[in-house]
Amino acid sequence: MQKPSLPSGTRDFSPDVLRRRKFILAVMEEVFTLFGFEPLETPALENLRTLQGKYGDEGDQLLFKVLNSGDFLAKVDDASLSAKDARAILPAISDRGLRYDLTVPLARYIVMNKDKVQFPFKRYQMQPVWRADRPQKGRYREFWQCDCDIVGSNSLRCDAELLKIYDLVFSLLMLPVRIRINSRAVFDAFLDEFHSERSLVYFLQLLDKYDKIGQAGIINILDNELKEEYVTDRDAMKLLFDNLEYANRGENSAEKLQILMRAYPENEALGTALTQVHGVIKAAGKLKNDLDLDFTLARGLSYYTGMICEVVPEDENIEIGSIGGGGRYDNLTEIFGLKNSPGVGISFGLDRIYDVMEAMGSFESAGPRRPSVLICPMIDAAFEMADRINEELHTIKIVSEVYPVAGKMSKQLDYANNKKILFAIIIGEDELKNKSLSFKDLTSGEQRQIPLSDIGKFFGR
Amino acid sequence: MQKPSLPSGTRDFSPDVLRRRKFILAVMEEVFTLFGFEPLETPALENLRTLQGKYGDEGDQLLFKVLNSGDFLAKVDDASLSAKDARAILPAISDRGLRYDLTVPLARYIVMNKDKVQFPFKRYQMQPVWRADRPQKGRYREFWQCDCDIVGSNSLRCDAELLKIYDLVFSLLMLPVRIRINSRAVFDAFLDEFHSERSLVYFLQLLDKYDKIGQAGIINILDNELKEEYVTDRDAMKLLFDNLEYANRGENSAEKLQILMRAYPENEALGTALTQVHGVIKAAGKLKNDLDLDFTLARGLSYYTGMICEVVPEDENIEIGSIGGGGRYDNLTEIFGLKNSPGVGISFGLDRIYDVMEAMGSFESAGPRRPSVLICPMIDAAFEMADRINEELHTIKIVSEVYPVAGKMSKQLDYANNKKILFAIIIGEDELKNKSLSFKDLTSGEQRQIPLSDIGKFFGR
Repeated sequence: MQKPSLPSGTRDFSPDVLRRRKFILAVMEEVFTLFGFEPLETPALENLRTLQGKYGDEGDQLLFKVLNSGDFLAKVDDASLSAKDARAILPAISDRGLRYDLTVPLARYIVMNKDKVQFPFKRYQMQPVWRADRPQKGRYREFWQCDCDIVGSNSLRCDAELLKIYDLVFSLLMLPVRIRINSRAVFDAFLDEFHSERSLVYFLQLLDKYDKIGQAGIINILDNELKEEYVTDRDAMKLLFDNLEYANRGENSAEKLQILMRAYPENEALGTALTQVHGVIKAAGKLKNDLDLDFTLARGLSYYTGMICEVVPEDENIEIGSIGGGGRYDNLTEIFGLKNSPGVGISFGLDRIYDVMEAMGSFESAGPRRPSVLICPMIDAAFEMADRINEELHTIKIVSEVYPVAGKMSKQLDYANNKKILFAIIIGEDELKNKSLSFKDLTSGEQRQIPLSDIGKFFGR
Repeated sequence: MQKPSLPSGTRDFSPDVLRRRKFILAVMEEVFTLFGFEPLETPALENLRTLQGKYGDEGDQLLFKVLNSGDFLAKVDDASLSAKDARAILPAISDRGLRYDLTVPLARYIVMNKDKVQFPFKRYQMQPVWRADRPQKGRYREFWQCDCDIVGSNSLRCDAELLKIYDLVFSLLMLPVRIRINSRAVFDAFLDEFHSERSLVYFLQLLDKYDKIGQAGIINILDNELKEEYVTDRDAMKLLFDNLEYANRGENSAEKLQILMRAYPENEALGTALTQVHGVIKAAGKLKNDLDLDFTLARGLSYYTGMICEVVPEDENIEIGSIGGGGRYDNLTEIFGLKNSPGVGISFGLDRIYDVMEAMGSFESAGPRRPSVLICPMIDAAFEMADRINEELHTIKIVSEVYPVAGKMSKQLDYANNKKILFAIIIGEDELKNKSLSFKDLTSGEQRQIPLSDIGKFFGR
């Protein structure tokens, strides 16, 4: 018989890991709820026409497509079949695919429910997504996204609110972070200076490499790719970087903004963009974590139009990249023909947050565990008392179970230790006779007799 | 532009519905945890060879298959391609499918992790599953299962524990139910009486129709299908039903068991089966809901070998069928070549439980709602105070948000009412001057001034 296995890029979540993931999710959900966000869940299966064309050519390739049921070849035309033309056959054999992110489903949901959605629509969504990417360390084919969006408002206070949410979630997780913020509009304003035939996306992709290769690396790429024909782009880019880096050296965001504004006094669009990002920072107020205005922050996604942000662990020794990111977009639902839905959203990278907290040992130090008890019947006659105690413990919300087979104390205690249960209650003949319990602290090994009636008191309930 | 839509048989869960579903899931999860069950999650994507052949021919048809990435036709042989033979082509173009239930993934998980799993393994799993069934009222292609299994123990106390879990979950949901219980071994014991060439599965499928068509209906089917050649089967079946129905009329389970045992004194296997089901009922003890021994309960699935059970709403006017079911199986992991893992499991039908609670109006009467506040800034200068109050309310765990645009009181209150927010705090020029708040109860409409410093006190924190 074949040994069973998992598809590459997928994982089982064992109890220990899952409990920790659920802890992170619960902290997020509580913060989202406190701020008035409402939950939404959409199906894993979406129509392919909903998904295709929304994530670029590469994204279309990475969509998981689901085969139509029954005789899926019936609708295929013979010519493409004999030509073995997978691309031509695909539309005939697959109508549905797996959710690729939580943003397109949000847009679809809003368009389908536009009459009942209350704007500004503040929703959070925490669900798995699927991408047929090549699996590698930290990159999975099935992974979770946790998104928080406010759709239907231009107010910068919405942008600021999401920064506060980042701040509170990571404070509660006791994971110190640096929130980097910038404005995509700042770049847009600069593109005018370039007079380039190349697209904004081209320069964004370059800027996105800044964190890894620095200014020198980017200028190097430009030298190789642009050659002499675009030497003005190269020079403009170099000047821009010099100015961005220089402005980044300001003491605080107000100073940084002023330096950059003074460097390009004629650029009105830049002035507006800088005023906006200043407004967001002011509205965010005093945060517990560092909020860094960083003019070299780019964020890859091309649909951002205003504020962009990114969260990295404060500890620079943790090399994991960003554990969250987001930004403002002009029009979420335009892809489905519904105009006027500007919004702003952030995303939490659950898997990476888990990895960072694991590396920091955060889970070990995460406060006292919920008390748990294994009730160990030594003889069959003990089950009646065991059941009664078990029920009483459940009533006062203590995790408790009765070992299902009497006898063999060492086997029962092994079970308790392997499950990391904190206490054991042993019931044998003596205990039945004396109406007392042998109560064992499995951490210290200490054991003592307590009267049956004191069991609730012991847990302070 | 095409109007976006959802694949048939799938659903979005809007905030109101999702909050209620989460409430049900949270009650289940708390009970599972109290009883010492541990969470497990497995990926939606499984290898097709893990899934195929586990659910019968019909199940294989209903599996959602995922198309391989890239040039999925490369491995297909030309002959089956030109023959348009979907069945022959399938294995070459699809290696993965979507999870069909939570039982096969559990078996796979245990086999893959047999050295680190602590037996008896008590796990719960609450995740969506996918079936390419024809959608109809109450039947979806993507729906949730909530399973609770104990693997690796023969103890009848495990069976009883799961009955207690049903009892506590439905008590906490305030949904009175009847738990029907029987033993598959009782049927097995009877099959000897039949001397039939037909299989156990054949008779189980007949028995499964009992609730709908009664004895007369089943005998009618037998008359049509068996004709004269199996007239002894028909007579044996008729006698069996007479005895089962007669035994069901006993006052309590002890009496029912005795009646049936007396009717077949020679049948040793029956005696054992009845003693076992008696043991389960005894170990379950006194429950808050009715526990009915019902000898006509069959449960369709053929892999059960011992106790079987089913949960129906106590209110017989609610015609929805079962909202939960389960039973004992001999060997969960044998399908993957690992022997000796007997177990017992139950399942909760989340969608049907939701529908019943909705029909009963349970959600409306479900206790006081968590207090929620909309802070309404009438002028831009109010945002500073609004933010301060908002933060203070979050600190004491009150759901609160600041409307992102100043002015237009009616628009802000509309927003609050549509989101079913309970209170509004209005901050205008007067309030800023007097350091007081206009506090409006949105349910009663009552409004009063309270001093800024009393806001925490107001919520009793």
